[in-house]
Amino acid sequence: MSLSKKDGETGTPRYLRALNGEVTDRPPIWIMRQAGRYLPEYRELRTRAKTFLDFCYAPALAVEATLQPLRRFPLDAAILFSDILVVPDALGRNVRFVEGEGPRLDPLIEETTWRFEDPARVVQRLTPVYEAVERIRAALDPSVALIGFAGAPWTVATYMLQGEGGEKDRARRAAYQRPADVDALLDLLVEATAQHLAAQVAAGAQAVQIFESWAEGLPPALFHRVVSEPNRKLVETLRARNVTVPIVCFPRGAGALLRDFAEAVPCNGLGLDTAVPPAFARAAARPGQALQGNLDPQLLVAGGAALEKGVRDVLAGFAGSPHVFNLGHGITPEAKIENVETLVRLVTSAA
Amino acid sequence: MSLSKKDGETGTPRYLRALNGEVTDRPPIWIMRQAGRYLPEYRELRTRAKTFLDFCYAPALAVEATLQPLRRFPLDAAILFSDILVVPDALGRNVRFVEGEGPRLDPLIEETTWRFEDPARVVQRLTPVYEAVERIRAALDPSVALIGFAGAPWTVATYMLQGEGGEKDRARRAAYQRPADVDALLDLLVEATAQHLAAQVAAGAQAVQIFESWAEGLPPALFHRVVSEPNRKLVETLRARNVTVPIVCFPRGAGALLRDFAEAVPCNGLGLDTAVPPAFARAAARPGQALQGNLDPQLLVAGGAALEKGVRDVLAGFAGSPHVFNLGHGITPEAKIENVETLVRLVTSAA
Repeated sequence: MSLSKKDGETGTPRYLRALNGEVTDRPPIWIMRQAGRYLPEYRELRTRAKTFLDFCYAPALAVEATLQPLRRFPLDAAILFSDILVVPDALGRNVRFVEGEGPRLDPLIEETTWRFEDPARVVQRLTPVYEAVERIRAALDPSVALIGFAGAPWTVATYMLQGEGGEKDRARRAAYQRPADVDALLDLLVEATAQHLAAQVAAGAQAVQIFESWAEGLPPALFHRVVSEPNRKLVETLRARNVTVPIVCFPRGAGALLRDFAEAVPCNGLGLDTAVPPAFARAAARPGQALQGNLDPQLLVAGGAALEKGVRDVLAGFAGSPHVFNLGHGITPEAKIENVETLVRLVTSAA
Repeated sequence: MSLSKKDGETGTPRYLRALNGEVTDRPPIWIMRQAGRYLPEYRELRTRAKTFLDFCYAPALAVEATLQPLRRFPLDAAILFSDILVVPDALGRNVRFVEGEGPRLDPLIEETTWRFEDPARVVQRLTPVYEAVERIRAALDPSVALIGFAGAPWTVATYMLQGEGGEKDRARRAAYQRPADVDALLDLLVEATAQHLAAQVAAGAQAVQIFESWAEGLPPALFHRVVSEPNRKLVETLRARNVTVPIVCFPRGAGALLRDFAEAVPCNGLGLDTAVPPAFARAAARPGQALQGNLDPQLLVAGGAALEKGVRDVLAGFAGSPHVFNLGHGITPEAKIENVETLVRLVTSAA
């Protein structure tokens, strides 16, 4: 948790200043999935809980996992260690993580009538998550911002509909075949997710990120209906409940539809995947909106000259506008720690 | 093969006229993977060859598979039944199709030194493919255009590098770690693919489509290097060898990078995946360039009002510019024949 004096002096963490529209001395940096399997200390810690959800629901473990990368790298933000599927788990959808296969849920598309628990049950059941947030905030240096997060409604709905990730064909088909049911599910998730994010903020999260990991492959009209509109409703619901922290939305794979998203969703920051050209993102963004991204995570495996060129390209591409340096997708287990060190050094010395 | 009199009278098939920049009376229509598993007669025919490549290399079977959808639907074009992996197969990369798992090749990334056969061996070995093209052209009504095709260099290289499809992380990593080797592979594929496409045209193909199925997820600089440039070289190599038929390039998943592609690659038609907004495509396209796409294939499973709305959206989105109606991705085995009939009826009555 080495942090520059300058940060301490200015008061507000650089990450939050960038999200407030400030072009900072150098971009703040954090790394999606920075607490994760590329860290040997995380792999060791992970063995202390039987299932992945047990791990997420054990505050001591979630706190430790969140803090681990901050002990190695002078990052500008920590992100709560948790998972987007705690929301459907709390909604009673029987979430389990199958080793080597990814998450499995009871697939809604196999049920004729969809019944859900009251969205208020989510925050009742996820108290260990909010306890972790409180303890992380207390442990962090004031110059390091703490980010809370949740999955966006369509992404979480896709898991709930299909019972798994992979090809999203069945979820898309359900949106055509059972439009009223799918829209009701999205509305339920807007409400449950708003409560979950508000509880994280109440516990100490200073910003929230909404992960729309599966914005890709949708026709324009369907994208607007299941991606842009639910994200807009979620942001507006949070604001209506006096959640005033910066909100970053990350519509991964939105492609040319990023414009539709940016126009519809009044968020402070737009997360960008690896394939978004910076100039396109700037043209699509709202005035003053911060852009976050978008180095290819494979460069943290490859390293060398390719990594240095990639970092320079991203820095140059977003220079002059509020920018949070990040990857375009989560860091992979194969990433090398020395490459992460190089990345952080290049960005933090970019002033 | 019911075909309207009007087509017979005008001489040039409607599909070719659209690719030549004409706004036709109604858009020509064909369907990616129109010869495929959604047709019971294809599933029956498929049993007559042991492996999928045996099927592709048996001219009688490839001819019959190509003609089957034309007997059911009044489509404006037939596309050779074959596979993009016949090129690496002819290059000696031991291609096999594993039931329920997709194709497998000997992965290049596991080899220290990459050795390939002479690209001229491709056309020597693929003579059964060209024989099929000749026989299809002879069997088709003159108003139905015959399309030849190949995979684009990066897509085929990805299979060759990784030995399989799925996540393209390893291929991308190789492009960073072994740039000279990967560029040499792409150049080899430009040459082999140009010869393969030229041989199809010599045998009777009246247009060719180049499938860049895996244009997605690449950072802008890498996209330009491995997608746009090799497609440009391939088109220019074909033109330099007096291949004058229309060329359609389909950079699936290009997203906002479609602009880079359209600017770099002088092709007659741009294939569009489901997620491309028509107005964005028109703005990105070259003057007079035809646009092809981009109905969601899941609508041919869902059917009903969603299908009708989807077709209307696509027709309206591309109205006024040269347009070839198609899906945004291949038709799926779950597609219902009555929905395909509805689609074809809606488009052919759209004049």
